[in-house]
Amino acid sequence: MGPKRTPIILLLFMFLTVSSSHKYKNKKNYKPCKNLVLFFHDVVYNGQNAANATSAIVGAPEWANRTILASDFHFGNIVVFDDPITLDNNFHSPSIGRAQGQYIYDTKNTFTAWLAFSFVLNTTDYQGSIQFIGADPIMIKTRDISVVGGTGDFFMHRGVATIMTDAFEGEVYFRLRVDIKFYECW
Amino acid sequence: MGPKRTPIILLLFMFLTVSSSHKYKNKKNYKPCKNLVLFFHDVVYNGQNAANATSAIVGAPEWANRTILASDFHFGNIVVFDDPITLDNNFHSPSIGRAQGQYIYDTKNTFTAWLAFSFVLNTTDYQGSIQFIGADPIMIKTRDISVVGGTGDFFMHRGVATIMTDAFEGEVYFRLRVDIKFYECW
Amino acid sequence: MGPKRTPIILLLFMFLTVSSSHKYKNKKNYKPCKNLVLFFHDVVYNGQNAANATSAIVGAPEWANRTILASDFHFGNIVVFDDPITLDNNFHSPSIGRAQGQYIYDTKNTFTAWLAFSFVLNTTDYQGSIQFIGADPIMIKTRDISVVGGTGDFFMHRGVATIMTDAFEGEVYFRLRVDIKFYECW
Repeated sequence: MGPKRTPIILLLFMFLTVSSSHKYKNKKNYKPCKNLVLFFHDVVYNGQNAANATSAIVGAPEWANRTILASDFHFGNIVVFDDPITLDNNFHSPSIGRAQGQYIYDTKNTFTAWLAFSFVLNTTDYQGSIQFIGADPIMIKTRDISVVGGTGDFFMHRGVATIMTDAFEGEVYFRLRVDIKFYECW
Repeated sequence: MGPKRTPIILLLFMFLTVSSSHKYKNKKNYKPCKNLVLFFHDVVYNGQNAANATSAIVGAPEWANRTILASDFHFGNIVVFDDPITLDNNFHSPSIGRAQGQYIYDTKNTFTAWLAFSFVLNTTDYQGSIQFIGADPIMIKTRDISVVGGTGDFFMHRGVATIMTDAFEGEVYFRLRVDIKFYECW
Repeated sequence: MGPKRTPIILLLFMFLTVSSSHKYKNKKNYKPCKNLVLFFHDVVYNGQNAANATSAIVGAPEWANRTILASDFHFGNIVVFDDPITLDNNFHSPSIGRAQGQYIYDTKNTFTAWLAFSFVLNTTDYQGSIQFIGADPIMIKTRDISVVGGTGDFFMHRGVATIMTDAFEGEVYFRLRVDIKFYECW
């Protein structure tokens, strides 16, 4: 009679496998299918650092200009960036790619930003791009944004990235630590 | 002999389950795994309402300024917003979160916009963010945009949001009704 | 005894089906569930072509204006567009929809852009929208960006789009060939 039970057991096993890899699962139990921790470094143009700047203010509200971040928590500033990505928190470490896109300061009574950018990686380990979008309540220690797509080695990937301000120097330099957890890998 | 048939029946059942929850299904039959209807309220800065404004023009074409929406259907205006989200259509209802991001007027012979923003929800029922992107042909009654990701209670969610202009007062205030239908829940 | 084996065979078959349609598969083997090749045409406003322009510079760094693309590889320019989409590479072919959104020149020592836009299609064959995001290293012949969502006939679709600069005339006109490969169709 044993053999006759095998299919049922397999079925149950399969059912659990299918379910758990996709849905119906308690959020706490998900494990990333891929995980990367990277840093990127943003040097905002301030009128005097053209050679070193990696980003520039390109949009500002009526009451502000594009050389100095706006008053009122920089509300309304759009910054375009092309920032080096490194494996550790050292600005001078070799760049393994570029973080490219924009961030927007979007609140007038606290520091929050909205991010939309790509990581373009070009190393022996990883070749491809990762797309990110999300709200960034800057004053909170860790913030989650969405990983909405990828190409190359990250073909069709999706996930969540936990970002953390790893350093902040005046209004010119900041470094973000990005803990990328892919939950959908292809 | 009955027990021997059980696995096949289960198999067929499972196969249908797997298929229908993912693909091959007639679009009309999909049912959301989660559904939220929310409203958000946008008060555009116009030079005189700094205290109440929730958004500001931060990009404009060469022929326009950032205090008044551009002529030619506002073509070229980028607006950054941090708008209160409410459960009903009353601007004075308690806010359950913020809609943060940008919209762009992108056509010069009719009113259309392009939207990229997040909902950041912070209630006892929902904690987390939802990411939206899409074209918004404003003059059409209901428009669909994409829900491309989420975090927290909306971890890895995807779906479609149907937006509707619920109120429009001059060029200063509008209210959007957002019917969020998640078809991929985790 | 044959019938008792059937379930196991079916099970194995199912397991392979489920796996191969979602994960664990070598990237090279994926085949799109839908494929579209389209072109779109961008005519940048340059101060003298208001009637024909389909896009306009709306953001620029402090050192540039919004009539002429910025020096330094246009770094910092945000362009809003509403471009006609055609089935072939002829600007005068009937438009089957509009490409709407923004591109940003984001590097100061080479030509790269960051793209975020939608295709809004309106033909007898296709009704719906497709959302795109990604980095665009313009000087490379073909570049991959992410297809992060869709509505209507592209309900919940995801994929990768390979873009190619099909024509480029001065700093006023360019035409992109977009080879959209959907790998997740609903």
